[in-house]
Amino acid sequence: MTDTATAEARGIAQRARDAQRAAMKATGRGRADALRALYLELEARSDEIAAANASDLARAAAEGLDGPLLHRLGLPPAKVATLRDGVLDLSKRPDPVGAVLARRRLDDGLELRQVSSPLGVLLIVFESRPDAVIQIGALAIRSGNAVILKGGSEASRTNRVLVECLRSSLEEVGLPADLVIGVEGREMVGALLACDTEIDLVIPRGSGSLVRAITDGTRIPVLGHAEGVCHVYLDAAASPEKALAVCLDGIMDYPAACNATETLLVHEEFRPTFSALQGVLLAQGANLVDPSTEADWGTEYGTPTANVRYVGSLDEAIDHIHRYGSGHTDSIVTEDPDAAARFLAEVDSASVMHNASTRFADGYRYGLGAEVGIATGRLHARGPVGVEGLLTTRWLLRGDGHVVSEYSSGERSFAWKNLPV
Amino acid sequence: MTDTATAEARGIAQRARDAQRAAMKATGRGRADALRALYLELEARSDEIAAANASDLARAAAEGLDGPLLHRLGLPPAKVATLRDGVLDLSKRPDPVGAVLARRRLDDGLELRQVSSPLGVLLIVFESRPDAVIQIGALAIRSGNAVILKGGSEASRTNRVLVECLRSSLEEVGLPADLVIGVEGREMVGALLACDTEIDLVIPRGSGSLVRAITDGTRIPVLGHAEGVCHVYLDAAASPEKALAVCLDGIMDYPAACNATETLLVHEEFRPTFSALQGVLLAQGANLVDPSTEADWGTEYGTPTANVRYVGSLDEAIDHIHRYGSGHTDSIVTEDPDAAARFLAEVDSASVMHNASTRFADGYRYGLGAEVGIATGRLHARGPVGVEGLLTTRWLLRGDGHVVSEYSSGERSFAWKNLPV
Repeated sequence: MTDTATAEARGIAQRARDAQRAAMKATGRGRADALRALYLELEARSDEIAAANASDLARAAAEGLDGPLLHRLGLPPAKVATLRDGVLDLSKRPDPVGAVLARRRLDDGLELRQVSSPLGVLLIVFESRPDAVIQIGALAIRSGNAVILKGGSEASRTNRVLVECLRSSLEEVGLPADLVIGVEGREMVGALLACDTEIDLVIPRGSGSLVRAITDGTRIPVLGHAEGVCHVYLDAAASPEKALAVCLDGIMDYPAACNATETLLVHEEFRPTFSALQGVLLAQGANLVDPSTEADWGTEYGTPTANVRYVGSLDEAIDHIHRYGSGHTDSIVTEDPDAAARFLAEVDSASVMHNASTRFADGYRYGLGAEVGIATGRLHARGPVGVEGLLTTRWLLRGDGHVVSEYSSGERSFAWKNLPV
Repeated sequence: MTDTATAEARGIAQRARDAQRAAMKATGRGRADALRALYLELEARSDEIAAANASDLARAAAEGLDGPLLHRLGLPPAKVATLRDGVLDLSKRPDPVGAVLARRRLDDGLELRQVSSPLGVLLIVFESRPDAVIQIGALAIRSGNAVILKGGSEASRTNRVLVECLRSSLEEVGLPADLVIGVEGREMVGALLACDTEIDLVIPRGSGSLVRAITDGTRIPVLGHAEGVCHVYLDAAASPEKALAVCLDGIMDYPAACNATETLLVHEEFRPTFSALQGVLLAQGANLVDPSTEADWGTEYGTPTANVRYVGSLDEAIDHIHRYGSGHTDSIVTEDPDAAARFLAEVDSASVMHNASTRFADGYRYGLGAEVGIATGRLHARGPVGVEGLLTTRWLLRGDGHVVSEYSSGERSFAWKNLPV
């Protein structure tokens, strides 16, 4: 990486940091105003957006981009309308900044509050879908953060216009435009990933290989998931109907998703029933790897394929999940409430389910509102992450000239009391 | 680092991981039982502890360790009694594991809960104070985590006995002894810091240089603070009495602490009053750097020394704090409620105070119970951290054969509803 790129990246990150701190003055109402301005701006610039997107699409088609990628790159008026609705909805939600999470009286006249606060400067690296510019940009504004956005080069024209929409909306309501900065090029991303004192969180949105490349290349905390090796355990007491439904959905509904089911763990006592179900799964197009071997158990297929392994007990199933799983999502199918309770208590994964498809592990389905991403890390945020993943906390203490030496000396003593929030 | 050390470290971390997962079966009552067993074990082995500590102290004295370090190394019966009281108190506190943080109905028969869960495997690296073995060991057990403890070599005999107390207590109640593992030697720490898939969190307890060395040498998340450059801003509307008290306490109460005050930012209008206060500060032994320069503003002195800088406005004070501070703790002294409100809202530090000494930033004083550490990172935990810093969350979904394809196809639709926890 060149010195110029390093210096430029630091300059960009510092502009974002300065803007974010200047915006700490803003109120929740001010941040909501910016979103309403964005709602209007997206309408006002709809022709410009359409033209930029058509140009990106034409170039991509000429370069031979295939169908699904072209589809993701497209931003037709209907998608813009959905984005605008999302922005308006977000502007109406309660202000996530400044929420009092805890309140405690330490002594007479000495009161402590823990409040939610913006995380700071976010770097979002995403692939072809330009919708992400508006979704993430709006979430960042709502939560008082600054965001640096790096999209895929195939969407560069569309992304530029969308970033401009965000920046003009901020300026229109008197907030710093540098709360949203668009960047381009791999070298710039590399240089930004080295700015670990200026950037607080990186969120990669895209393929597992993108997430892994970013995680391996930075000291900045990363919110993302590189792998989803998800299991369905069919217990001895599984209902055949529910077993079939949950397996079918997990394997077939959307095999490319990280929450698709990779391995079926089948209790030996359920094996005869499962043999009958296998025919239905195969008839529906599932590819079952049976027998499967250790080499298969860590594989994320991305296709309607699932390993089958027979186990002698619930414990053996849980051990398998801990040894070969990725801690993403695992489900038990059973009518035995004790087995279900043990599975839910003991499986150490971000999402653990009973009689439900692993495909439910998703911010929208969980009702979190706009989804920031899915985290397989254990710290800060785990599983599907909503706007709270973009927040940290601060402790605010109000006194009246209170000093610690009076407590150490025994002149005063603490009288802690939790207060309602 | 040798291959042997690497393999040994991985083996130790894996034993800890296996023990932690096996202990997911345990109940809160079982974990509390282990603490009660520890309370008794510390009494039963009091002679052994005293002998080991006497031996460590004799060796340290022979090696010429100085007074304060010898004092920290000592574990007289009174300190053991305090530790035992702490352990018993912790056993009586509510179970931190399995607390329901959120509950949401997604649809008929489909209910989501977010529950607090153990973080996993912790690595604690601490300096001479052997008390930390019991304090952290007990906290780890209470919160369902496994912990690998590396103490200072000068306390090795004492640490070994204390680790044995923890391990026997666990075995006595049927929990895996490997929930607590003691290790020794720098090479082993280095090798453990490379186990970033087996260890979830490192907590360094000791000097800033220890914390920096660890943070720079690992990809594992670190909960710690390397620096505390804390500010007191004396506003134009400061009360002279409160200004004096807060400055005196911040500078003089315990200058070596990270929450001691490093820099006084004085509003120009308060300068005449401050000139009079300076005499009192100097008479009490404070060393004021006035005029101070940019080179001083980032310095953490560790002695009763403070920079003085005059500023023209609240904004200038906040800018100074953001530019030169470490985001640890900053306080405003003022009788102007608007200035106080702006300072509390806009200063981007873990603790922000009004008319109170920066020295209050501490888990004990904040009433968090046992303190895990102070975090200057912004993710996961920030500021003084209690047992909640050792927890993560899991999402638990209970259904009745629910599948996602029925929602995508429109056969069913979500009916989200937050439920009381």
